[in-house]
Amino acid sequence: MSMTFAETLYKGYAQTIALDGPVLADERSRFQHIRIFDSPLNGRVLVLDGIVQLTDRDESSYSEMLSHVPMIEHGAVKRAMIVGGGDGAIAEEVLKHKDVERVDLVDIDDRVIALSKIHFEHVSGAAFADPRLTVRAEDAFPYLKAAETAGRYDLIVADRPDPVGPAEVLFADEFYSVVSRALAPGGFALFQTGVPHYQAGELTQTVSQLSSAFKNVGVFLTVTPTYIGGHMGLTWASNDSRLGTLDHDAIAARFEAKDFPTDYYSPAVHRAAFALPPWIARLVPGKNR
Amino acid sequence: MSMTFAETLYKGYAQTIALDGPVLADERSRFQHIRIFDSPLNGRVLVLDGIVQLTDRDESSYSEMLSHVPMIEHGAVKRAMIVGGGDGAIAEEVLKHKDVERVDLVDIDDRVIALSKIHFEHVSGAAFADPRLTVRAEDAFPYLKAAETAGRYDLIVADRPDPVGPAEVLFADEFYSVVSRALAPGGFALFQTGVPHYQAGELTQTVSQLSSAFKNVGVFLTVTPTYIGGHMGLTWASNDSRLGTLDHDAIAARFEAKDFPTDYYSPAVHRAAFALPPWIARLVPGKNR
Repeated sequence: MSMTFAETLYKGYAQTIALDGPVLADERSRFQHIRIFDSPLNGRVLVLDGIVQLTDRDESSYSEMLSHVPMIEHGAVKRAMIVGGGDGAIAEEVLKHKDVERVDLVDIDDRVIALSKIHFEHVSGAAFADPRLTVRAEDAFPYLKAAETAGRYDLIVADRPDPVGPAEVLFADEFYSVVSRALAPGGFALFQTGVPHYQAGELTQTVSQLSSAFKNVGVFLTVTPTYIGGHMGLTWASNDSRLGTLDHDAIAARFEAKDFPTDYYSPAVHRAAFALPPWIARLVPGKNR
Repeated sequence: MSMTFAETLYKGYAQTIALDGPVLADERSRFQHIRIFDSPLNGRVLVLDGIVQLTDRDESSYSEMLSHVPMIEHGAVKRAMIVGGGDGAIAEEVLKHKDVERVDLVDIDDRVIALSKIHFEHVSGAAFADPRLTVRAEDAFPYLKAAETAGRYDLIVADRPDPVGPAEVLFADEFYSVVSRALAPGGFALFQTGVPHYQAGELTQTVSQLSSAFKNVGVFLTVTPTYIGGHMGLTWASNDSRLGTLDHDAIAARFEAKDFPTDYYSPAVHRAAFALPPWIARLVPGKNR
């Protein structure tokens, strides 16, 4: 019997992925329905609550852009936090930067972490064994609210799923406030803000909400094929810095000094990511375009 | 009864599109199976032989990039030819340039042209009524082979479908030779070269073939959500010019003088399109990266 997974993210439009071999994991955790399987064209796939979260073949377009773009522009990220990200993909990219001293990964679901360690070792690489990484299986919201995180992080990446189920709280005004409070001077917070072609409202609303919690906000783009619908919006926020200001040569000099390979990120791709097609720019409220 | 269209382009991966209302056209022409329908998330959809060719909501990302990028860089396109393009989407963009004197649209299938005039009038705009446009329902290959087309065109856009069915001949070495011969000095030929994420071989092979027929060849990118799989490769070829050489300010000055609105194209997007992610650059043979 051949099996096919049909994504349930949208009404009236879907991607379907044939399975190649048996289902590797199919488990209802306390928070969500976790499925992992192999596929002929997309490699290994992680699905949460019916929505594709990660595939082998295109995760670099997401994890590299959410980490290297802000880290290269910041120039001296020492402490980073990942909200969610239990698969380890972003942690791996952040830890490629040798001057990073500490990464706190806070994912609410210990089962996503445990299953990813088994089935996505090739995606997380050396991350989970890196002594600079601390993994906490807990709710990121109270974690960030605690007094001791104030001003702690140079980088916070909200690797959040779509705004349904357990992640809904990660799209609330109060969440943005606690993220803002946890940033160190010069720090950047990054948020995936959906696929504008099918989730236009998510980009507009998130930028608008972030503008209340942060001084500076802006949008850049990546293209992750299985986040179906073309471009994905990535939104940055900061209280005292701006992203997208470095020119190509400065980016290239900093990246060259880093000395690690990438699949999606390059200095040219970094600059290019800030060029929004007019139809996307029109979704970004006012001064943040 | 609710109906859903499932694309048949790939084995093991597909997009499915729910229909919104009745099928508007479902007809087998001498060359292919033509279907047109409305959908809730993608607007009106044109399907040929089971493969999405055009939707209302994202056609600008394809038609604007295949026309404005080469036309802005060329600077003085007077005569243009469109191979295929019976829907009129690219013709409309080319004709937005007021200094264009003549556009020859050569599509093998008069039924695609006739049905598009009825159902995609909002996409072709004023194109089919423009006296500068000549429409020929014939095979583009012998048309280009005829002696009188030698050196005729400043721009040739091969708006070809995937290399199956009637379009297969548009991927042969001999086709590239006749296109090369039909270019005027300084002219550019443009080819859609598939979605690298799922059709990596098509990009590599087309660039390699084009390198035999033209002096200069290169790749830039667009993102058309319903050409499923993220980036689409667009390949340019010329015997005496290069694309991707103008800087942002020069592009912006030329585009501003054109004075027409766009949805996807902008001077910044034009420059950004030449930034290939490393995984795509590795698919482009040698000197053409």
